[in-house]
Amino acid sequence: MKRAYNFGAGPSALPTEVLEIAQKELLDYKGSGISIMEASHRSRLYDDVHQNAIGLVRKLYKLPDDFDVLFLQGGASLQFAMVPMNLYKGGKAEYANTGAWSKKAIKEAEIQGLNFDVVASSAESGFDHIPEVSFSDDCDFCHITSNNTIYGTQYQEYPKTASPLAIDASSDIFSREVDWERVGLMYAGAQKNAGPSGLTIVLIRKNLIDRVQESVPTMLRYKTHADANSLFNTPPTFGIYLLNLILQWIDAKGGIAKVDEENRKKAKLLYDAIDNSNGFYTGHARPDSRSLMNVSFNIREKDAALEAKLLEEAAKANMIGLKGHRSIGGLRASIYNAVPFEAVEALVDLMNDFAKRNA
Amino acid sequence: MKRAYNFGAGPSALPTEVLEIAQKELLDYKGSGISIMEASHRSRLYDDVHQNAIGLVRKLYKLPDDFDVLFLQGGASLQFAMVPMNLYKGGKAEYANTGAWSKKAIKEAEIQGLNFDVVASSAESGFDHIPEVSFSDDCDFCHITSNNTIYGTQYQEYPKTASPLAIDASSDIFSREVDWERVGLMYAGAQKNAGPSGLTIVLIRKNLIDRVQESVPTMLRYKTHADANSLFNTPPTFGIYLLNLILQWIDAKGGIAKVDEENRKKAKLLYDAIDNSNGFYTGHARPDSRSLMNVSFNIREKDAALEAKLLEEAAKANMIGLKGHRSIGGLRASIYNAVPFEAVEALVDLMNDFAKRNA
Repeated sequence: MKRAYNFGAGPSALPTEVLEIAQKELLDYKGSGISIMEASHRSRLYDDVHQNAIGLVRKLYKLPDDFDVLFLQGGASLQFAMVPMNLYKGGKAEYANTGAWSKKAIKEAEIQGLNFDVVASSAESGFDHIPEVSFSDDCDFCHITSNNTIYGTQYQEYPKTASPLAIDASSDIFSREVDWERVGLMYAGAQKNAGPSGLTIVLIRKNLIDRVQESVPTMLRYKTHADANSLFNTPPTFGIYLLNLILQWIDAKGGIAKVDEENRKKAKLLYDAIDNSNGFYTGHARPDSRSLMNVSFNIREKDAALEAKLLEEAAKANMIGLKGHRSIGGLRASIYNAVPFEAVEALVDLMNDFAKRNA
Repeated sequence: MKRAYNFGAGPSALPTEVLEIAQKELLDYKGSGISIMEASHRSRLYDDVHQNAIGLVRKLYKLPDDFDVLFLQGGASLQFAMVPMNLYKGGKAEYANTGAWSKKAIKEAEIQGLNFDVVASSAESGFDHIPEVSFSDDCDFCHITSNNTIYGTQYQEYPKTASPLAIDASSDIFSREVDWERVGLMYAGAQKNAGPSGLTIVLIRKNLIDRVQESVPTMLRYKTHADANSLFNTPPTFGIYLLNLILQWIDAKGGIAKVDEENRKKAKLLYDAIDNSNGFYTGHARPDSRSLMNVSFNIREKDAALEAKLLEEAAKANMIGLKGHRSIGGLRASIYNAVPFEAVEALVDLMNDFAKRNA
């Protein structure tokens, strides 16, 4: 067996070490004679996993005590609806639009009939950067997308705002430290940096939990899950088990600051290859907005034939998931936490060689 | 490694053969060099799994063409809210109350302000049977709970009704054949008979999909998922992969009728042990309402000391998950599809021996 270099945008690479543990334990978790998947969510066996995962989120993220950690389902797509359902109080909301995922979040505000504004957007330049964002002080909530997988842009830091800031961090959760002073609520589908698909992580400031109306269905209230420590109903137990293993893996590396350092090295290697290619490769994102997670680029001015050729050579060299999103074409290397440095080295070697041969 | 006999109510036993395949493939699915968990939900690799799972649901359940198969998230608990959100048209709804899960479904109808009636209930006799149910012909929908895990009761057959019937089949999906003429919508959390927690299966008659209002959030409309073949957003891919393996396992056994036959043999063995114990064991459910999935029983008139002793002896003999729900105490043996006949034999041997020793 040779593990591929997986540059897919999500679901994406998981640490090989984590999968090896999961494999070993799959039919017999810690001598119990059952898989952790087969354990009741009310059992001691599972509860240890659940509590450990919550504890590691708190520890690794240095999460203040006035935040709750929730394990939900439905992905960011359901959070787009749950955020307004839970945080809107009949005043106003503000959104920043930095691409496809922001637009989906905004659409749910429309569907729910919120009074809201889109106060910043980079739509006019093809979402190639993160715009200046300044939110009003009197919003029920405001909303940003931390990292934009398609366009390869990322907030270098989060805006300061007096209104509660809701952040979709689906594609960069656990990849860098967070200034929690600036955050009201952060949510993420797990399937990029934190586990398999089917698990949603929500980190929410406790003072935002109680404002929900009683007309909101039970399962769609953060309060339901906060009150029950995410055990109101059966959580996605295997996903939480894998999250716990991934957090242990981050912990063993030295924590999130250390992972961030590695991510910056990986990203620098790749962006340098683009910047030093004499225009052979062209990055989509403006340098001041570049993502450390998704590097979207073209060959020259979208030379589709050469791009296809590079994809083909990459596949032969065991590198997968490099095709860019159809909306901007080209290539995209997603270099989440679990993508090893050697994978990026291999890709950069190929890119340099390919540029020479096709100059 | 010795696999335990797992009688847990859910999450519960999975077929050992299925877990063995999953274990083998966990780091390298079909020579791809990646886990199926690491595959994009838009990839060919995953799409084959997705389509196969849908195809097997159709084939094994003999599902008519005018039904859609949906893979969602959030469990039955979210379906309690989604059913009225999608099916209620401002007329009326009717529910049958056969226990804790029915009550939770009914609560969501209340929260949404539906005009509804509870037209049948077995609350007065401690939910020990399935009451006669007769629904009106002019409901927007009516609702039943197919099998009641706590009380060990089960509809022997579904009521005939002119109104669309929504069925919570979380604890008996894929355990017996279904007369689809009687069904409008069937839903189930996967974690009892169909896979790990975190996957929800919805089988819905196509003519019920379009009536949803545009004020319902995108992710909460069946239409969204039906239109996108359950790929509107990232589905719980690993859960669907396991579902596919479980359906293959059922197929290899000879299909659902065959599994039902095995289930009836397991249940008969257990109920016979209760009935032939001269009152040492007392079943909770009335014989005409007995569940083939969950057998809830006490020792004499709730002899808590003896019940604890039996649980302890069972644990020593590698049998787990037998403690009854706190609301009725005693013991409960959940004997879902994946619990082998030999597990039930072992339990019955212990029960017979225990009864003799403690008569």
